[in-house]
Amino acid sequence: LRGAASGLRFWSRRQRPAVANLAVVCSRSMASKTPVGFIGLGNMGNPMAKNLMKHGYPLIIYDVFPDACKEFQDAGEQVVSCPADVAEKADRIITMLPTSINAIEAYSGANGILKKVKKGSLLIDSSTIDPAVSKELAKEVEKMGAVFMDAPVSGGVGAARSRNLTFMVGGVEDEFAAAQELLGCMGSNVVYCGAVGTGQAAKICNNMLLAISMIGTAEAMNLGIRLGLDPKLLAKILNMSSGRCWSSDTYNPVPGVMDGVPSANNYQGGFGATLMAKDLGLAQDSATNTKSPILLGSLAHQIYRMMCAKGYSKKDFSSVFQFLREEETF
Amino acid sequence: LRGAASGLRFWSRRQRPAVANLAVVCSRSMASKTPVGFIGLGNMGNPMAKNLMKHGYPLIIYDVFPDACKEFQDAGEQVVSCPADVAEKADRIITMLPTSINAIEAYSGANGILKKVKKGSLLIDSSTIDPAVSKELAKEVEKMGAVFMDAPVSGGVGAARSRNLTFMVGGVEDEFAAAQELLGCMGSNVVYCGAVGTGQAAKICNNMLLAISMIGTAEAMNLGIRLGLDPKLLAKILNMSSGRCWSSDTYNPVPGVMDGVPSANNYQGGFGATLMAKDLGLAQDSATNTKSPILLGSLAHQIYRMMCAKGYSKKDFSSVFQFLREEETF
Amino acid sequence: LRGAASGLRFWSRRQRPAVANLAVVCSRSMASKTPVGFIGLGNMGNPMAKNLMKHGYPLIIYDVFPDACKEFQDAGEQVVSCPADVAEKADRIITMLPTSINAIEAYSGANGILKKVKKGSLLIDSSTIDPAVSKELAKEVEKMGAVFMDAPVSGGVGAARSRNLTFMVGGVEDEFAAAQELLGCMGSNVVYCGAVGTGQAAKICNNMLLAISMIGTAEAMNLGIRLGLDPKLLAKILNMSSGRCWSSDTYNPVPGVMDGVPSANNYQGGFGATLMAKDLGLAQDSATNTKSPILLGSLAHQIYRMMCAKGYSKKDFSSVFQFLREEETF
Amino acid sequence: LRGAASGLRFWSRRQRPAVANLAVVCSRSMASKTPVGFIGLGNMGNPMAKNLMKHGYPLIIYDVFPDACKEFQDAGEQVVSCPADVAEKADRIITMLPTSINAIEAYSGANGILKKVKKGSLLIDSSTIDPAVSKELAKEVEKMGAVFMDAPVSGGVGAARSRNLTFMVGGVEDEFAAAQELLGCMGSNVVYCGAVGTGQAAKICNNMLLAISMIGTAEAMNLGIRLGLDPKLLAKILNMSSGRCWSSDTYNPVPGVMDGVPSANNYQGGFGATLMAKDLGLAQDSATNTKSPILLGSLAHQIYRMMCAKGYSKKDFSSVFQFLREEETF
Repeated sequence: LRGAASGLRFWSRRQRPAVANLAVVCSRSMASKTPVGFIGLGNMGNPMAKNLMKHGYPLIIYDVFPDACKEFQDAGEQVVSCPADVAEKADRIITMLPTSINAIEAYSGANGILKKVKKGSLLIDSSTIDPAVSKELAKEVEKMGAVFMDAPVSGGVGAARSRNLTFMVGGVEDEFAAAQELLGCMGSNVVYCGAVGTGQAAKICNNMLLAISMIGTAEAMNLGIRLGLDPKLLAKILNMSSGRCWSSDTYNPVPGVMDGVPSANNYQGGFGATLMAKDLGLAQDSATNTKSPILLGSLAHQIYRMMCAKGYSKKDFSSVFQFLREEETF
Repeated sequence: LRGAASGLRFWSRRQRPAVANLAVVCSRSMASKTPVGFIGLGNMGNPMAKNLMKHGYPLIIYDVFPDACKEFQDAGEQVVSCPADVAEKADRIITMLPTSINAIEAYSGANGILKKVKKGSLLIDSSTIDPAVSKELAKEVEKMGAVFMDAPVSGGVGAARSRNLTFMVGGVEDEFAAAQELLGCMGSNVVYCGAVGTGQAAKICNNMLLAISMIGTAEAMNLGIRLGLDPKLLAKILNMSSGRCWSSDTYNPVPGVMDGVPSANNYQGGFGATLMAKDLGLAQDSATNTKSPILLGSLAHQIYRMMCAKGYSKKDFSSVFQFLREEETF
Repeated sequence: LRGAASGLRFWSRRQRPAVANLAVVCSRSMASKTPVGFIGLGNMGNPMAKNLMKHGYPLIIYDVFPDACKEFQDAGEQVVSCPADVAEKADRIITMLPTSINAIEAYSGANGILKKVKKGSLLIDSSTIDPAVSKELAKEVEKMGAVFMDAPVSGGVGAARSRNLTFMVGGVEDEFAAAQELLGCMGSNVVYCGAVGTGQAAKICNNMLLAISMIGTAEAMNLGIRLGLDPKLLAKILNMSSGRCWSSDTYNPVPGVMDGVPSANNYQGGFGATLMAKDLGLAQDSATNTKSPILLGSLAHQIYRMMCAKGYSKKDFSSVFQFLREEETF
Repeated sequence: LRGAASGLRFWSRRQRPAVANLAVVCSRSMASKTPVGFIGLGNMGNPMAKNLMKHGYPLIIYDVFPDACKEFQDAGEQVVSCPADVAEKADRIITMLPTSINAIEAYSGANGILKKVKKGSLLIDSSTIDPAVSKELAKEVEKMGAVFMDAPVSGGVGAARSRNLTFMVGGVEDEFAAAQELLGCMGSNVVYCGAVGTGQAAKICNNMLLAISMIGTAEAMNLGIRLGLDPKLLAKILNMSSGRCWSSDTYNPVPGVMDGVPSANNYQGGFGATLMAKDLGLAQDSATNTKSPILLGSLAHQIYRMMCAKGYSKKDFSSVFQFLREEETF
């Protein structure tokens, strides 16, 4: 990857020379670390915030569910009572929220960040939301003299814990180094994607392709098995051929083909069908807004919608293999 | 890949010790090579037959179009007037034909192979056809005391010329070594897939997943571009994320993203949309026969069908990106 | 419907003057009725054959399951031991069989009709099969100097009992009157569709559109209900608007909207999902053969395929509403 | 239709006794008619407003394009400079706007209706927009002590001119009579659908089913033609069978089958593919919001999206038949 030539700017823990971290200094960080605000301490936010703590950042914490803050309070971090109060005490804030609605509330609500945000603050939203909403929030933030970046993550709870998340970052390029300083504490890849909203766009496009590949893998594996092929053998043939994809070679949905993946564990853990349906809903919205045809993407959305309606909500999204498969009792 | 442990038996030119070829001896080959029959000298059959010649096999040639044989006649190979005559003069025969109908005619027709096939002959069909037809042919061949294997190929005309085809072989396992001897002269991978028909099954499943991944990649790239992402950057993000697939990292359909692929050359060359539509038709038939749901596979079939109706027949199948894209004149 | 002007020739019991039946005389019928062969006495064939008996036709009966013939034997009809024997004793034969394979066996098998068919015989196949197979059978029948017509039916077991079937007839137009004489005893509409195979084509196209409309109605009703509309009111609005279709106004899939339809009776009776999946498989095959794109038809096929895999096989095809609906236990 | 029994309340010009109009009196109308506001004088709004004029209502007019108002000004109607001014001068207002964004602007914008709306005013929005937006507007209107109803129309420009529109009305039932007084001047059917937003819901569901039926009809007709059926004959068979739908019997998409429909006139006039794509986008949004699976509806959306990208934007939506059909030049 020749980043310079191609326009790709990304930063990987493995490739970074040891001194780089020292060199990353921006106007917002000082010799001793200033506090970082963190709003949204759910399944993902919790381990992300802990990784910031491990890197020595004092935190200013808020979550709509007070219980979610307790652990941090016990650890000596400061808990406040609304997003506005976070903005009052920290000039760098990470938000990690489940939906567009929650993000709008946290930024523009009656006690939202924008009520008390300081000029020059850096607000990084790691929620996965509609890129049109990210752009809207960025406009409002800019009016207040602050900076907004969207930085949704790829990788689940496990990756959040082990600091292996990938952040896809959209926003003004000059501020990317400042964002890297924080995001690099929580993930192994931080990729600059372009203007505000492109972080969301990259994530949405990736997850749409992921959903399509996964369902395609499930269909191909199921058809092959019915035609008499051994599942492990079929997976190997696909993986050395043009059908190869992450869903076939790294996260195969057929029980017995791979170890250490959700299909080996009754589809528990992993990335739930509900979350995939949510991301496909965002792809659908973005496609409708931009009038882009997404024939397979749209059908993939409906399939995950059906799965949620039929009891697969909490199973890993690779359980589409089970959903397609003939039930034995009939 | 630990073939022994997993049941995958494949043979790769690169991994083979130099002496292996000498050791591959079966009842049908003698010290000096006996003739091999070759039926179907089209775009694929022509370079495949030439590679057999290069390995020193005398050929017995037949094609419904006499012109296709001329080149081989000039080179001193023997041309006969029907498949039956091929079977009379050779006890190992390769068939490479465009459709199920052609294969049935070549084997079971009035002047077909079965009319004069010798006991113990090895008949290898490299056509891509319905696995149900392969099974039917195998039954008829077996009645005559001969052996039938299906061995469709992956890879196009270029791979056929450079001896880089992959053969997916179905049939009695004891005969696989004998098939390898010949197929290894024409391709770099020869994979044993299981009982008769599983070679076709493996190819069909791979190509169905390939079609799905390619359309998915085209949709994701198109959506991302409309959302403001740079195509090269988006491709790189996908390729280091869970959306990664052969269609995104090796054969990207967006002009300007990669060199040396059909999208860099106005979608010329490569694997035509018509051929993909044909393979998806076989997937459709197989799915209907086995009552397997293939939601995305079936829609992919219809999309390639539409493309063929709209003038993309001869373009590479990655031109689905162009098909989805808004036309500039409107 | 002005049949003469438009090219539609059909015959309806209601429109026929009482004397018409007497006037329908063809070369094969005499003053006292000659025997009619009937092959296939299943759920549909049984009541159809009984209606022929009621019209005074002596029957020559065959079914692969001897039990299916017993009732007719007890009633004094002649039961024979193979299709060839039917053809020896009757010069008009009706076949009513479940699949293409069964039809091929009955006509071209070792003891098939063609082994003993008399010149000038009229063979009418009321099975629903691939039109390509109908054409093939017609060719073979013609070689023997006999006449073949395809005449699949619309309407289920109830319609068969009450003589309310619709027959869609393909074959030589000169023979249509002769076919009418028999088919008119078993159904209320006999429609001439054109050359051999067009009867099947008409049925397949109708049932594909039916499947699409039914799923569409189920989706629209389900969406409307979730948006707060009363189901009965929504059905009425659709039925006076451009969304109106047979599935919404005559066979509504939502429980409580209409009486006397399967949705009012837990989707029992009616036209089973398996049968719809079979007909959509024929549409798929025909579309693949003719290279016609059927985007919705193909997806409808997959949806019924899924339903069969999930326990809806024997439920009426309108149960797709239930399949789409969110399950309450989750 | 037994409206009383079933809960359907609708009002049809044809069924109305001549005296009914006199009886329709509500608090907002007086002996001589008070002015009615009209915002949005586009292709649809123009003839609708004229029909109000013909019934003797003085109008208060506003459109973002001043030219659209000129005709009305010349006819003596009062033109004002913003929606707020309309609200100042009229206590009954009709809005007819192209998108959700425009409706939000007209109601909640800086110079929107809500800035000067009088208590007790009746605001009827005949735009086709997201039902979630209708509900949001209704809330805001209610806060000002006024009444909001959504009343999207079915029927195009022709129906608007000839006063044959159907209005689907959502809102408080007590206000329905007041809405009827005005809407009945512009359309022949005014249907009460339930709470605010259900008017939109009914329209969206109808149009989604319409799109599905139309594409299904196009696919079935195209497949049948390729299988050798005469198009007129096939249409007649469908129309007397279970495939019957409005798209097959009233608006057949195949040229030559019917007169007086867009398919008879190179798909000019009628309901453009762009408008259908817009309505399907609303269905998509509503389905995503309510988590309803719409497999065919979603694919229909993508098909109309593709058509718009390929030059069919302005053709009638029945031109999907042409889009599916093989092009003759290839």
